[in-house]
Amino acid sequence: MTRFGKFLDKTLQDLAYEPIWNVICESDIDPHDIDIAFVGNAYAGMITGQESIRGQVVLREAGISKIPIINVENACASGSTAFYLAHRAVASGQVELALAVGVEKLFCDDTGKSLKALATSSDQEIEGKMGILFAGIYAMRVRSHMEKYGLTREQLAKVAVKNHDHGALNPHAQYRNRVTVEEVLESRMIADPITLLMTCPLGDGGAALLVGTKEMAKRMGKRPIRVGSTVLGSFGFTRKDEPSIVARVSKKAYQEAGVTPREIQVAEVHDAVAPVELFLYEELGFCGPGESGRMIDERTTWLGGRLPVNTSGGLTSKGHPAGATGIAQLAEIVWQMRGEAGDRQINPAPHVGLVENGGGNVAGETAVVALHILLA
Amino acid sequence: MTRFGKFLDKTLQDLAYEPIWNVICESDIDPHDIDIAFVGNAYAGMITGQESIRGQVVLREAGISKIPIINVENACASGSTAFYLAHRAVASGQVELALAVGVEKLFCDDTGKSLKALATSSDQEIEGKMGILFAGIYAMRVRSHMEKYGLTREQLAKVAVKNHDHGALNPHAQYRNRVTVEEVLESRMIADPITLLMTCPLGDGGAALLVGTKEMAKRMGKRPIRVGSTVLGSFGFTRKDEPSIVARVSKKAYQEAGVTPREIQVAEVHDAVAPVELFLYEELGFCGPGESGRMIDERTTWLGGRLPVNTSGGLTSKGHPAGATGIAQLAEIVWQMRGEAGDRQINPAPHVGLVENGGGNVAGETAVVALHILLA
Repeated sequence: MTRFGKFLDKTLQDLAYEPIWNVICESDIDPHDIDIAFVGNAYAGMITGQESIRGQVVLREAGISKIPIINVENACASGSTAFYLAHRAVASGQVELALAVGVEKLFCDDTGKSLKALATSSDQEIEGKMGILFAGIYAMRVRSHMEKYGLTREQLAKVAVKNHDHGALNPHAQYRNRVTVEEVLESRMIADPITLLMTCPLGDGGAALLVGTKEMAKRMGKRPIRVGSTVLGSFGFTRKDEPSIVARVSKKAYQEAGVTPREIQVAEVHDAVAPVELFLYEELGFCGPGESGRMIDERTTWLGGRLPVNTSGGLTSKGHPAGATGIAQLAEIVWQMRGEAGDRQINPAPHVGLVENGGGNVAGETAVVALHILLA
Repeated sequence: MTRFGKFLDKTLQDLAYEPIWNVICESDIDPHDIDIAFVGNAYAGMITGQESIRGQVVLREAGISKIPIINVENACASGSTAFYLAHRAVASGQVELALAVGVEKLFCDDTGKSLKALATSSDQEIEGKMGILFAGIYAMRVRSHMEKYGLTREQLAKVAVKNHDHGALNPHAQYRNRVTVEEVLESRMIADPITLLMTCPLGDGGAALLVGTKEMAKRMGKRPIRVGSTVLGSFGFTRKDEPSIVARVSKKAYQEAGVTPREIQVAEVHDAVAPVELFLYEELGFCGPGESGRMIDERTTWLGGRLPVNTSGGLTSKGHPAGATGIAQLAEIVWQMRGEAGDRQINPAPHVGLVENGGGNVAGETAVVALHILLA
């Protein structure tokens, strides 16, 4: 992956070129061995004007042609959707090697345009007409959880502190500064109780992964990581007494991979605002309902804890170039499993890792959730 | 599929709802049996403002949720790319029933906006900067072919006459009027030698298909049609002495389906401008190089001929709501094979049919070509 950040001088093509050629060179393959490519991007149409054939343009620049190229969009889960399809193409036996790319350019000369693009990941007929933005939707979910289980503002802030601590160790992170609980709570209020330092920044970036058959993976230069499961789910008009979309999708992923939540040793989750990470602990089964506050207090999910979460810095600190995020989350787990995570390496290297990547809003629910379990 | 046309009062959701529920009802399945959905659309971000999660919004309106929903974009081949992935999902054994939807809304209160959207299917860095539009690119290809093989303007016009003749018989077609060779040649010049009546119109429309396992297909109310092959290819910096993208992709499709070009009994091809249909005869192997002019003169590809092409009216007459086109082409072949094509039915019903759907431009070549061969 590229470092995430603000790169006004880089095009969408530039942002994709670097990770595509990094992964090709690192894997020691001939680029002609790639059978199919899936390119995840959410907003380039509105930011760069290349509404259509984004992946073809990006791969033309990278010198990749002739093979099937498929443009995939699923809001902030576009990258992991590209990976889902790449994995499916290989697992079906129809191809031996698939390339999954996630790329996003959000910074441009007009921040209003960037924010407008992000808002199109809500249903224009429902959220759009109400004028409610992501921060507002997240704030309502956080408040409801605080009232139900007594989560404190300090606990919410601690997630941001942890992810900034982790991001400070990650050369790919957009923000590499540490913050304190006080600084997080005293930063500008965005949508009560979410403050500025709890939110992820706008970002530009790209990431790429190769998915191959067992035989293909053995030929590559790097230790291959096995895909235990890759599951995608959608909003479901969920009633209060039904499991959330994340709980529903993760249950399926655990079954498919044949592991239990307690076996997960490292996870990257979609902390578009830091407090959401707490419900994710509960919905992913890392702890019981209402126990996530204690989990962050006890530093269980900090580097050095039993189950480090968002060792990359998460969206909050590493940054969130929407279409790139899912692939970048997977990259972090791969690096951790291979013992290549540098200053933020978990010791010993984990054997079971999870990625949760969410995107969009439909009728008050997250539109898309992608769950991936990787096995060493 | 919906009838294609100008429907200013219909939303993208309206255009998808009708074909989705038609195909569900016609197939006699429970909508909960659908395991996964692929939604092809090219330009809604620029026309309706719903840049992201287009498929989720369309399926929310249709009452379909929870399952994986994947937004697919490949310019004017977006629909057939959705079908390609739906077929792959089933063929891989990972799902039993997949829904492929193609939908496009091109008409809006500002035709300039529609034309601008279409132009984004060219590489903004190459064709975009040159200011060359699709009609211009097609015109250059046609002129080169005329010079090489002596194709006449009358032969070009005859394709438009044939497709309008066919479209006049199709209740789903946008244009149902017949035209003469003289009318075609005397209509306004768009990009010499392409005249107005040789071009496809802007259009709104939707189409949907279900792809299932053999067992699932048997349970459905309608006679199932077998997918012999479904192949996707990209531009390839092709030199003059190399086969064109269509020749390259169709060779693979014929191999996969185990049929020869001479066995094809019906075809829908991408006549975004009618004259292009002539090269397609050659590139698809329906005739030898330079023989397509004679083929149209001899009425081989007219209804009643040996190999009727574009019995639906093709893009020229049926219309071309970009993302919907690929699925609509497949629908025509399915109807022909089932003997359900009404006034335009081939007798006896064909057993081997082909769909060719193209999209976009990259560095002077068609960006995407999808080829499907269906077997009765």
